[in-house]
Parts: sequence; structure tokens; C-alpha cells
Amino acid sequence: MILHMDLAERGYDILLERGALSRAASYLNLDRRVLILTDEGVPAVYAETVAKASKRAVTVRVKQGEGSKSIPVFEEVCRTLLEEGFTRSDCVVAVGGGVVGDLAGFVAASYMRGIDFYNIPTTLLSQVDSSIGGKVAVNLGGVKNIVGAFYQPKRVLIDPEVLSTLPPRQIANGMAEAVKMALTSDAELFALLEREDAMTVIDTVIERSLRIKKDVVEQDEKEAGLRKVLNFGHTLGHGIEASQGESGLYHGECVALGMLPMCADGVRERLLQVLVRLGLPTVIEGDLEEMLSLASHDKKCRGSRISTVRVEEVGSFRLADEEIEDWKAEIRSALMN
Amino acid sequence: MILHMDLAERGYDILLERGALSRAASYLNLDRRVLILTDEGVPAVYAETVAKASKRAVTVRVKQGEGSKSIPVFEEVCRTLLEEGFTRSDCVVAVGGGVVGDLAGFVAASYMRGIDFYNIPTTLLSQVDSSIGGKVAVNLGGVKNIVGAFYQPKRVLIDPEVLSTLPPRQIANGMAEAVKMALTSDAELFALLEREDAMTVIDTVIERSLRIKKDVVEQDEKEAGLRKVLNFGHTLGHGIEASQGESGLYHGECVALGMLPMCADGVRERLLQVLVRLGLPTVIEGDLEEMLSLASHDKKCRGSRISTVRVEEVGSFRLADEEIEDWKAEIRSALMN
Repeated sequence: MILHMDLAERGYDILLERGALSRAASYLNLDRRVLILTDEGVPAVYAETVAKASKRAVTVRVKQGEGSKSIPVFEEVCRTLLEEGFTRSDCVVAVGGGVVGDLAGFVAASYMRGIDFYNIPTTLLSQVDSSIGGKVAVNLGGVKNIVGAFYQPKRVLIDPEVLSTLPPRQIANGMAEAVKMALTSDAELFALLEREDAMTVIDTVIERSLRIKKDVVEQDEKEAGLRKVLNFGHTLGHGIEASQGESGLYHGECVALGMLPMCADGVRERLLQVLVRLGLPTVIEGDLEEMLSLASHDKKCRGSRISTVRVEEVGSFRLADEEIEDWKAEIRSALMN
Repeated sequence: MILHMDLAERGYDILLERGALSRAASYLNLDRRVLILTDEGVPAVYAETVAKASKRAVTVRVKQGEGSKSIPVFEEVCRTLLEEGFTRSDCVVAVGGGVVGDLAGFVAASYMRGIDFYNIPTTLLSQVDSSIGGKVAVNLGGVKNIVGAFYQPKRVLIDPEVLSTLPPRQIANGMAEAVKMALTSDAELFALLEREDAMTVIDTVIERSLRIKKDVVEQDEKEAGLRKVLNFGHTLGHGIEASQGESGLYHGECVALGMLPMCADGVRERLLQVLVRLGLPTVIEGDLEEMLSLASHDKKCRGSRISTVRVEEVGSFRLADEEIEDWKAEIRSALMN
């Protein structure tokens, strides 16, 4: 199936198809120099498949984890492009999860002020969320995604077959973002996640999540308003994530926890049950005050105020702008219940 | 005088006005956190003037020269923004020449995926050319502007009074870009430069140069075609510049030399005379083959081909796409004459 992201001259197709990876050459223009960025956690065969389909491939395999989303690694990859003689008409392909996609996208956005970028997400999290929409970035000073760009890929190839090699915790990690989409925008998808074993309906979960994200990005590419809904659970989530370090909870696990206090009571009860079904955490462990303090470094803060997203009814949301101190107080109180 | 750069939602005003710097607070929104980026070669009083006009100013003074246009310095400035608590609603102001503007612009483009950027160019070169148009970048591996973005400023403030503190060689450096605009697009301006002492008509030189650049950028913001005219003299120019190192010729001096072989014979004669009048070099010294080799790393190259700009008649130009080897041969031959 093809979904078209309608962003005028920046528009692109998202292909969702089992086995798409093995047909990369027919879906992407690889008849040029191709920098394949992947990481040590991604089965090497995926990058090799793309390399074989490319005219002149250079594969860069970074370390797994957020540590690779740094400005020095960004510089290193740009240097490789330069040394390998990449020009404006060549391209970068991400083969991996969100870390690889965010890093590769920022490299493609910046090298020669922008060369073609393709994304082949290989984790559930990147397939349902981070691979589309054009937010690319690296981290700095312990703050996530603080340096980056809005840069849309030329095409996104989503092959659900690659999910079969993922460990269950990685699947749960991605499900958290699907839950986010469902909870804020698709009551039917949420009901499906309450009812079915998620992996048996995974293609539907991916497609419906992509449709929600696509609609939001089309209406608000650069996060002037509506797109903030995609940050549901992410402000506190980023605070939890920042407090953990590399070996702590995964991004989706932190988002799962970050959504809980932002739901009305009845919704929170249903969310808790879905998180348990999916194998996601439901209790924040650690120093909440530190997490709240780290959360207030987020891009969603302006001065003493913060943009927030709340769900009072499954399938809908409310955006607000409030005092950071009020928001912290509400979270403390919600977590007491 | 106000020129409006018409780029739809990315459009902005360019103010050209003697004394504008001292009225910065009325022209720019400085009622927020303001990162002022300047360098050690810019009179400190200019940045101080902007700082005094700002609600909460942080001034970063980088070393003078291309060495500051690097990814590590970019990272350092981003870190300062983060540590000083800058949010999406704060801004960056460049107070300096092209190095400062390019670095500050790339920082503003990337921090939180883009915050407001103002440019107050204080060299002639940046006033007539680099401060408008939205090309921002840093250097890497000895190649100029290889990592960057297209990112338009929110406003540009051009105060010709600041030029009075510039040494003559810096004035000549900027004049080279004005000559480029004239030679390719404004025969009247070229005649003015042949006839008058340039400094006595400097406001006119700046205004006419800005009008040319504005027209070109409006028609081709991202250099898909027409904008390549602004690269006239720059491909060989970048090669000359890269072969010199920090203590060599200035950018404008290299562009002056780079224009010479790209002119038809009659035009070259007139150009030579203007360069001499303006105190610009007319003879390439050093290893031409090395310069040509460095030039072929330029962003204007794709595979074995290169985009070139030629002037056969003053005030007009011809864009071409040719084999790099042919281009090198023509340059060798033109320089023999």
C-alpha cells in the first residue's frame, strides 16, 4: 500500500508492504552514490540488501543507542560523505530505528544544505512514528533532539517482515507510540489494542498509526499547533528518559509512563490495562522531581510556560498552554492517585 | 530604505539605513533572550550596542576567520543556547561578517530545529551579499560551506556607517562581490564602478547589489537554477581559497581572481581595470593544478560534471553544465592569455 504525504513540493510516498526491503532497488533511486547508515543492533543483512541494490554503496554502522545521536557522530558521517565524494545528486538511506533515522536525516538535511534522504525503518517504533514527518535531530548536553531540522525524506519504505527479528521489549517500545496515536486520535484502534493480540494485527496497527501521523503532519508540518498532539506523553517522557541514562527505559516505555498522568481518570484506567497487555511499564520509579526538572528543559517550554496535551476521552485530545509549575503540580497529584 | 525579500511565509525585510545599528531595538524584537554572535575582529561596541538594546543578552565572541566556521564551534554555540535556557521563542543575532553570519545562521536554523535569526552585517562583503539569501553553513575537511542549511533570517539590518572602521583591504574584499553582481546583472553598476571612486557611491553600490541578489533569491531560493549566477567566480575562487590556508587571500580576492578566466576576452579587459582600481588582485599565484583539484570538490560538481557561469557581455551571463576536465582546460587556456 502507498500512502502519500501531501506537503506540496516536499511531499513523498510511504510504502507499507511485506517484503519491500528486498525490492528496494525498484522503489528507491539507488543508481548513484548511496550512504547507508545503520547501527550495530540492526541485523547486518538489511543494510547489505540495500548495498547490493545500490550502484555505489558506502555503509556506516554506528554504535547502537542514543549516544550516536551526537554532533561529533554527525560530523563523522558528514566527513565520510565528503571523503567518498558524495555530491548533491547522491543520497543517504537510513536502515534502522529512530536513532539511525534521526541522525541520517540530519546529515542528509545538512550535507551540501540537503541531499536526498530515504528512510527504511526497521523497528516498530520507527515504522509507526519517527520515520515519517521530517523531524530529524541529534541530542546535546543530555537533552534529546535539541539540534536538528525539519527535513522530509524522499520516500519511506516500511517492511513489517523485519519486525520478526525484534525482541518483545522492542515491539512493546513501538506499541507505546501506536497507543499514543490511538488514545489521542483513533478510538477504534485503541479498542483493537484492548481486544486483540497486537502482533496478530500488526499491519493494521502500523497503517492506522501512519494515517494519523500523516494527517497531522500534513496540517502542521513545522509544529505550529496541531502537531503538538504527537508529543502526547513526551514531555514527562523525555524527563524520565533523560534521568535514566543509556541503560534505562526505552523511549516508548518512557512515553507510556508519560501519558498516564495526562489522561483523565477513566481513560487512565483503560490505558493502564492496555500498557499491561503490551508489556509496558505502568509505575514511574526514580526521582520524580529530577524528571520534572529535566522535562522543563524541553523544546515545548517557552519561558515559564509549557505546551501540554491531555486526553479526557479516548480518541480525542486537548492542547493547552500552562505554567510549568502548575503542570508539575498536576502530575504530582495524578501520580498520587 | 526597506527592501522586502518576497519568499511567502519566509519573506523578510532588509533595512538599509545609516545609523540603523543604534536603532536596533526599534527594528528587531529584542524583548527576549538574545544570543549575539560576533568575532574578535568586529569592534566590540557593535555587539554591545545590540546587547544594551536586548532584554536578556548573551554575547559569544568567536575567533576571527574561517576556522570558526566549524562543527565543533557550531556545537559550542548550541551548547551555550541550551545552558542559557534559550527556547523556541528566543533569537540569535549575528553582528559581524560572513563567517559570523554563516555560523550564527546555521546555529539558529538547527537549535530546536529553528529559532529566529537576525543578521547585522558589519563588513562590506556581508552587506552586499552574504547576509541575505539564507545560505548558512560551516566548513568541513577544508571544504567551504559543505554542511549547512537554507534558512532565511527574520530581518537584516544594514548600516553603512559601520564600514568606516574597516581597513581598505576589507572594503576591496566586499567590492569583489559587488563587481560580481554588476558584471553578471547590472551594466550600469559596472559602469559606475569603472567611473567613480567606489566609496563615494557606497550606498548606491550596496543597494544595487542587494536588489540583484534579492531578485535572484526570490526566483530561486534553493539554487535549483538561476541562483547559480551568484556563484560566478566562486568555483575556482573556492579552489584558490582552499589552497591558501588562513593567512592567504580573502574570499573576495579569490572570487575576483576566479571571475577572470570566466569572462570573454573584451569583458576580461574591463574587469581587470576595475579590479586594479579597487585594489583587488589580478594574477593567480601558486599551484593552479592544486586549486583546480580543490575546486572540483565544490558543491557545484555532480559526478564528472560541473555547473559554470560565464560572462560574455557586461551585465549578462550564461549558465552551463560541462565536463570538469573541459572546464579545467579552458581555465588553463584563459590564464595563458
